[in-house]
Amino acid sequence: MRWNNFDGLAVYAKLAREAGRLKGFDYRAVLDEARVRLYETPIAAGLTFNYAAKVVDEGLLAVLREAAAEAELAAKYRALLNGEVVNTGEKRRVLHHLLRGQQGKAVFENGKDIGAFYAGQLARFTAFADDVHAGKIKGSTGKNFTQAVQIGIGGSDLGPRALYLALENGAAAAGTQKLAAKFISNVDPDDAAAVVASVPLETTLFVLVSKSGTTQETLANELFVKAKLAKAGLDSAKHLVAVTSETSPLANNPAYLDSFYIDDSIGGRYSSSSAVGGVILSLAFGGDVFKAFLRGAAEADKAALEPDVGKNAALLDALLGVFERNFLHIPYTAVLPYSQALSRFPAHLQQLDMESNGKRVNRDGKPIAYQTGPVVFGEPGTNGQHSFYQLLHQGTDVVPLQFIGFAESQRGDDVEVDGSDSQTKLKANLAAQIVAFAKGQSNAENPNKDFPGGKPSSLIYGRKLTPESLGALLAHFENKVMFQGFVWNINSFDQEGVQLGKILTKKVLSGHSGDGALDAYSALLGGS
Amino acid sequence: MRWNNFDGLAVYAKLAREAGRLKGFDYRAVLDEARVRLYETPIAAGLTFNYAAKVVDEGLLAVLREAAAEAELAAKYRALLNGEVVNTGEKRRVLHHLLRGQQGKAVFENGKDIGAFYAGQLARFTAFADDVHAGKIKGSTGKNFTQAVQIGIGGSDLGPRALYLALENGAAAAGTQKLAAKFISNVDPDDAAAVVASVPLETTLFVLVSKSGTTQETLANELFVKAKLAKAGLDSAKHLVAVTSETSPLANNPAYLDSFYIDDSIGGRYSSSSAVGGVILSLAFGGDVFKAFLRGAAEADKAALEPDVGKNAALLDALLGVFERNFLHIPYTAVLPYSQALSRFPAHLQQLDMESNGKRVNRDGKPIAYQTGPVVFGEPGTNGQHSFYQLLHQGTDVVPLQFIGFAESQRGDDVEVDGSDSQTKLKANLAAQIVAFAKGQSNAENPNKDFPGGKPSSLIYGRKLTPESLGALLAHFENKVMFQGFVWNINSFDQEGVQLGKILTKKVLSGHSGDGALDAYSALLGGS
Repeated sequence: MRWNNFDGLAVYAKLAREAGRLKGFDYRAVLDEARVRLYETPIAAGLTFNYAAKVVDEGLLAVLREAAAEAELAAKYRALLNGEVVNTGEKRRVLHHLLRGQQGKAVFENGKDIGAFYAGQLARFTAFADDVHAGKIKGSTGKNFTQAVQIGIGGSDLGPRALYLALENGAAAAGTQKLAAKFISNVDPDDAAAVVASVPLETTLFVLVSKSGTTQETLANELFVKAKLAKAGLDSAKHLVAVTSETSPLANNPAYLDSFYIDDSIGGRYSSSSAVGGVILSLAFGGDVFKAFLRGAAEADKAALEPDVGKNAALLDALLGVFERNFLHIPYTAVLPYSQALSRFPAHLQQLDMESNGKRVNRDGKPIAYQTGPVVFGEPGTNGQHSFYQLLHQGTDVVPLQFIGFAESQRGDDVEVDGSDSQTKLKANLAAQIVAFAKGQSNAENPNKDFPGGKPSSLIYGRKLTPESLGALLAHFENKVMFQGFVWNINSFDQEGVQLGKILTKKVLSGHSGDGALDAYSALLGGS
Repeated sequence: MRWNNFDGLAVYAKLAREAGRLKGFDYRAVLDEARVRLYETPIAAGLTFNYAAKVVDEGLLAVLREAAAEAELAAKYRALLNGEVVNTGEKRRVLHHLLRGQQGKAVFENGKDIGAFYAGQLARFTAFADDVHAGKIKGSTGKNFTQAVQIGIGGSDLGPRALYLALENGAAAAGTQKLAAKFISNVDPDDAAAVVASVPLETTLFVLVSKSGTTQETLANELFVKAKLAKAGLDSAKHLVAVTSETSPLANNPAYLDSFYIDDSIGGRYSSSSAVGGVILSLAFGGDVFKAFLRGAAEADKAALEPDVGKNAALLDALLGVFERNFLHIPYTAVLPYSQALSRFPAHLQQLDMESNGKRVNRDGKPIAYQTGPVVFGEPGTNGQHSFYQLLHQGTDVVPLQFIGFAESQRGDDVEVDGSDSQTKLKANLAAQIVAFAKGQSNAENPNKDFPGGKPSSLIYGRKLTPESLGALLAHFENKVMFQGFVWNINSFDQEGVQLGKILTKKVLSGHSGDGALDAYSALLGGS
């Protein structure tokens, strides 16, 4: 297996030629019913990836197949699954797939079976959640818990929060919500103060999440919460659990009711499938819901092993994205879920994608000469239609679009107006937008009402947003980002870009920054 | 006053030359304490705009002054204030400034003084809110209202929601919160169902907001809410107020407790200063808070009249943004508030900027040959530091950054950890990021730990986020976007780009789309 830079592959020049050939690709002429039915492939758990409105034809697909073969993408994914150290910067394995099921060989670390370790933690924290729900574990005054609050930042916040919001309606509809959940993330003291003021402390269980146990924001918020618990006469050791690594100061510490573990093979932005997402989601919805989420993700992970690009949605989505980034030279992509429950899913994907593939050196630490990860942003539809879609339709640049939609709502509580219910309107808007972006509509008389079209989009669709389909959706994007990282020959699993800010922050706080500009900014802000 | 295309101005070529001269502008060498202190100008209400970390020097500032003069930006702003029809597409005036105070001449429409009309509405809805708070206006079972829920989408949602979240902590700290507020926007039925299930219907007052009274999403959600009220045995006419235009079907309609009016001179994304934002904010916090917000905005509007670019923060911010967009060829900008209370402010700015300036024809409807509005995205810091900042620091492209920060928290409820409180840590992080982005840090031994720097940023800072400073902050960005639209010679006040989707949606819903692809997408989604 060879790890070559993208522009060192023979297929690189071929893709550039494809971009030339497809220049001015006429959506109006080709986007018909047959193409919509032809250009799609299943993801998993009932989700399907449709790419009929992308800049693609059989010729390009053939070259994408060559790209996948020459870059050995399937083999690299398999190596990752088998425990090879693909996080070259930090010299770590990348094992978040193993949290959801074993697709490759068993992986051992110092004789310990990592898969068994993950399964053991899953069993432990779902049992813990069961005990909380059954009232076997109570707060310090003997009352049952009614509220969970996660304290964490970055991957310990964005993913779990997005998933919680995505699953809340389904649990409400089924009457299976166990505990309400809230999240504290920012070091801004107003964040913790507002959340703490809004929950019943006596019946609140806090979930403290930090792999290292040293995250500045999370530790400050922990102490904030502990001070409030103490002030309320509550024993914080009975109101806090920790999610951390076994070697962190939070592990096996009597200051917490219990501790659940992850290890260095689980990156923060890939940790939603671990105890980082699992504890809070199991507390909120029960362990069965979280296990269903993992099943859906495992199904998508398995589907991503398919070597044929045309039958592997994650691989295809990845390669189409690379083509747009490197050969159509488009620097961004918008994620547009037509589901209010996915309101924070774009913010999670923003981290997943931009933190993984926002890199300028290859996996061996050598600068590269081509562009990597795009800027990712998005808001739910139809809200976005009344906001930034104006620029997408009639701005001066092309922004590729990633739509997501479902046949059914989660709550099934709807109203019929003008002959259709709201869910039908939601879907009609989604279908209309795809076609409007692709085909446009010319208006020679009034260019202000002219829509040029030619805005590529893809659509992920399914019957309903459930724990299983949510798991498949998350895994699809994780695997897409992974494949793109392989193509670009970068390390998608480290984040050295966060370090300089940490160093300078410490200098400011110590009062010895040694930099006049830094001191001046700090003074402007009324800082130390 | 002449309305010329940007590339028809003499200064266009000069700006291009400036970009060449400033290529490779060395931040490391120039960003020192003196520059930080020199390159800033006040906004209003205690806010200051600092641009020391931008690609700018005295030479460029001189050319930006020429640009402002040649494009007659101050005169165009004054014409807008005086009621000239600058919304050329829809042939409308643009009068949102007049909601906050009269900076120009009195404006009359068919003999009616528009300023007096706006002031009258402000007086009416703040008095209405007073009556609700005093228990003079009650729900249909005779109980005082405890909860307000806004039903609206786009500008009737994003701005008011962002402002509500921005003011909530301050009201909590002062003990002056009157009613809690929530928002229903999406046509996704799960949005309304979730909000309605979470509020006490008997004591909830709904604020229905639609200028035309025909917005598809808002009408569907209104009927959803009315059905729930009826089912609960409540009289919806005593639980709903309308915010609309005087000519809409919602106006002066016995189906509502009361109606408050705006007119066609107030665009949706500029309507937060009108009854669209004012009713819900006055209900939540009292009319005095909303009036303080308007005062801050008026102060910024007045400051934006200053003809000298160096003393006019909105004008300078606008021109620096144009320089980055058209001559440094950067297609996006990130908004990064170091304040959790501003968590949804970037989403509002995304609409404000992208819907206003995402245009490809000039104000006379003629195609233009230069780029207009950028993609805008953002999340609060420090959260973003643990997410997409990796790409901003070490990705392959430059993203300009717009930071916002405050000396004090809103609640003043904080905790000291390791010798500093959280607010101090928050500010230290902000100062550190500005310098890290600008100066970077080279690491020849390990390029993976190398930070190239050279990422331009600006900083808006103030003592505290209050109603006044929030008003100034909003007005600053509205005026910045306005000035950029003037430079680009586009109409920043229409949104024809939303129309095609509406037309195609209707076709789908009617069952007669006449487009095979549209039918096929609709069928995939399980649509009609």
